[in-house]
Amino acid sequence: MISFRPVLFVFGLLVTAMGLAMAVPAMADIAAGHSDWMVFAISGACSLGLGGLFVFATIGQPIELSLRQGFLLTTLSWIGLSAVGALPLVFSELGLSYTDAFFEAISGLTTTGSTVLAGLDRMPPGILLWRAMLQWLGGIGIIVMGIAILPYLRVGGMQLFRMESSDRSEKALPRAAQLAGATSTVYMILSVACAAAYWAAGMSGFEAIAHAMTTVSTGGYSTSDASLGHFANPAIHWIGTLFMVLGALPFVIYIRAVRGKTDALWKDSQVRHFLAGLGLAILAMTVWLWMERDERIADALLLAAFNVVSVVTTTGYATVDYGQWGTFAVGAFFFLTFMGGCAGSTSGGIKVMRFEIAAIAIRSQLKRLILPHGVFPMTYRGQTLSGDVVRSVLNLVFVFIAVFVLFATCLSLLGLDFITATSGAATALANVGPGLGDVIGPAGNFSTLPDAAKWILSAGMLLGRLEFFTVLVLLVPEFWRG
Amino acid sequence: MISFRPVLFVFGLLVTAMGLAMAVPAMADIAAGHSDWMVFAISGACSLGLGGLFVFATIGQPIELSLRQGFLLTTLSWIGLSAVGALPLVFSELGLSYTDAFFEAISGLTTTGSTVLAGLDRMPPGILLWRAMLQWLGGIGIIVMGIAILPYLRVGGMQLFRMESSDRSEKALPRAAQLAGATSTVYMILSVACAAAYWAAGMSGFEAIAHAMTTVSTGGYSTSDASLGHFANPAIHWIGTLFMVLGALPFVIYIRAVRGKTDALWKDSQVRHFLAGLGLAILAMTVWLWMERDERIADALLLAAFNVVSVVTTTGYATVDYGQWGTFAVGAFFFLTFMGGCAGSTSGGIKVMRFEIAAIAIRSQLKRLILPHGVFPMTYRGQTLSGDVVRSVLNLVFVFIAVFVLFATCLSLLGLDFITATSGAATALANVGPGLGDVIGPAGNFSTLPDAAKWILSAGMLLGRLEFFTVLVLLVPEFWRG
Repeated sequence: MISFRPVLFVFGLLVTAMGLAMAVPAMADIAAGHSDWMVFAISGACSLGLGGLFVFATIGQPIELSLRQGFLLTTLSWIGLSAVGALPLVFSELGLSYTDAFFEAISGLTTTGSTVLAGLDRMPPGILLWRAMLQWLGGIGIIVMGIAILPYLRVGGMQLFRMESSDRSEKALPRAAQLAGATSTVYMILSVACAAAYWAAGMSGFEAIAHAMTTVSTGGYSTSDASLGHFANPAIHWIGTLFMVLGALPFVIYIRAVRGKTDALWKDSQVRHFLAGLGLAILAMTVWLWMERDERIADALLLAAFNVVSVVTTTGYATVDYGQWGTFAVGAFFFLTFMGGCAGSTSGGIKVMRFEIAAIAIRSQLKRLILPHGVFPMTYRGQTLSGDVVRSVLNLVFVFIAVFVLFATCLSLLGLDFITATSGAATALANVGPGLGDVIGPAGNFSTLPDAAKWILSAGMLLGRLEFFTVLVLLVPEFWRG
Repeated sequence: MISFRPVLFVFGLLVTAMGLAMAVPAMADIAAGHSDWMVFAISGACSLGLGGLFVFATIGQPIELSLRQGFLLTTLSWIGLSAVGALPLVFSELGLSYTDAFFEAISGLTTTGSTVLAGLDRMPPGILLWRAMLQWLGGIGIIVMGIAILPYLRVGGMQLFRMESSDRSEKALPRAAQLAGATSTVYMILSVACAAAYWAAGMSGFEAIAHAMTTVSTGGYSTSDASLGHFANPAIHWIGTLFMVLGALPFVIYIRAVRGKTDALWKDSQVRHFLAGLGLAILAMTVWLWMERDERIADALLLAAFNVVSVVTTTGYATVDYGQWGTFAVGAFFFLTFMGGCAGSTSGGIKVMRFEIAAIAIRSQLKRLILPHGVFPMTYRGQTLSGDVVRSVLNLVFVFIAVFVLFATCLSLLGLDFITATSGAATALANVGPGLGDVIGPAGNFSTLPDAAKWILSAGMLLGRLEFFTVLVLLVPEFWRG
């Protein structure tokens, strides 16, 4: 039997931290003279009480997590923190049902960015700040998880990103913790730089901070229903484009760059392929907008760059309703939803690394078909790829598609039309944010969906964020046996 | 350098056979007193001349095909025979462009069943018979290819279906040829039985023969624009359902059954999973039709059974426009398009075998995540699955999806709307036939698509039919080197 004690202890610490974080939006509301601060005070107190309960009930021996406890803690944390993070939204004057509040909170923490809220422009600052903070904290959680946890759980090829120097867990874990700390520092510096740039370009201080939090985390929550389309300012859109890309690159390369390895950026094939793919998609969309929609070339480039980057980095901002750009845009944005950024970043989706490994496997197989007795070793990042790693990557892609099919079918069963059901399932699993079509497209929101659809999409965001296998492993009977 | 001589010799024989086959529709037109027989006489003469040219230019040494020649012959044959099979359609009074005629011919030979023709009900019998024959001959070609060629090319996991007793090619090939002969006999018996059943249920002799040819080959061409909806006769629909299923089962089991192993049907996990999946889909659709569309339960069952079986077996008949059944039907039929029947049958799509192997790989990986040092051998059909086979299956699924994305995006670029572009790409790659939506749905046809779209879809039918890798291997430079 798996021991729950250390799992619940760490979980309790995280809930406590979540409660403390609620002090920030409370103070923002007090500063704005808004009575909503009490909502955060009450929610914070609940969270502190709950978290403290877990901590004190399980405190004692030193904490050492086994593999299975690692799986359990990861899934439990994302669900539990979403459940707690939803409290201010339930208690606030918005009058949200718990379903809506949970959807909004898990969409925040997983940095998805799908929203059930309309009328953002007139909302109290506390709520807007809390949504941004959920994404920002979620972003840190994702990076730490990607560096310190998933590589050791060996999920979906993430074992390739273990610390190189040591395979023995006693040494690797402290090194990973150290790296996670350094990465969080980089994350904060990027956030501050992004906020400063937004502010210099003309956003208010509050808007700059809130949007910086949801840009660098590739989250996509905005303080306006019109998303970044609210700001008719090319400089702001270009800044957003830049920082979304920076948020979707592997954070480890920034640390390498700081340590003097300034070529880290170009030496990483993931980065090269990501930027090349992004460039190609932007180019195609720019030409389409220029030729078919008669946009001026500079406008076309900015519209294409911002919105393509937003979807591919799985941020989910929009400057216009790109669903109205015609057939090519709908098809392209639908498929771009699945792509994702780089492993080791805050972005979701299938991710560049997996496409690279699939391409390597396919090229190797084509050669073996021609020369059945030839030897074609597969290498990636200077390592020989084991068949096991390749299978775990291909399995993840298969599971991604299979869950997409299952969820899209369930959403159709609930009465959602084809484009809403398919783009909704895709956007949740890839943690992008908006879907396509009139209902959940960039100009719409998720509020009118039936509750069952919201729970399905919430499950989708969780599965996608945790690379599927982290959650699915809990459904295997062997997991719970001795 | 690869020697083209034996490839062109066999290709010439196949073209010659195609020319001879054109005598059949010629005779049908003569019997009906229709002047169109000359179209077939001229096309047949052209084909005989062309085929004869190839044969006599390359005749000589005995024929032994190497692996690479096998790949080349397979792709060349399907393209070349489509090009030749299109001739009667070009020369006929229909006034088809060569693009349309080639599309119709390759859609026939690959047993896809997408059509550019309207007004079938008033067409001369020769053309209708030729379309049916293209599918019927294509069906034989697919079975022979699946038994005697693909297993040795080791494409997409098909190596699992090599003759068990011997791995040495000298022995295996004659055995495969023998088996292919036996299977063709079964195919003919099924076709005759199907025609007899259709005729007994009320079709005319001509309709019964034409539909039997396109039912058993899971092709889907009909003699009426309304497909089998033309026959308001439940018996005919049930007969069609039965024989479509029989055409989508692995033909080897019939031979085993004839040889006394009557439990072959139930011992094959592929068959069990195929029938179970089909049953589940039919049940869900029946309940939906009964509850949401207020159909009588018997009507709902027949409508669901016929149309679900038609799509899953990749036949492509329709008795109604199931695209009008509402959100669930659209979503379900879209995803069912990809599924496919059993390996070793005439059906297309991803195929049950690949889902089974992916499921085995995923289950094994989940267990290894929990117990990293455990040993979890993957077994299928009593054999241990090598990592190589699993990867070749997963690679094929990945390539299927990647090509689907590429083709659907290209179709959007040509101005096709989302449902037409995505369902069009899917239906071509899976060799189903109709797509979804107003244009290419079961009530429409492919005639209004731009020519570029027709060539893309033709390429899709070829790629899907030849399991992708058979064609893609020709694009690898190493293929053409010494």
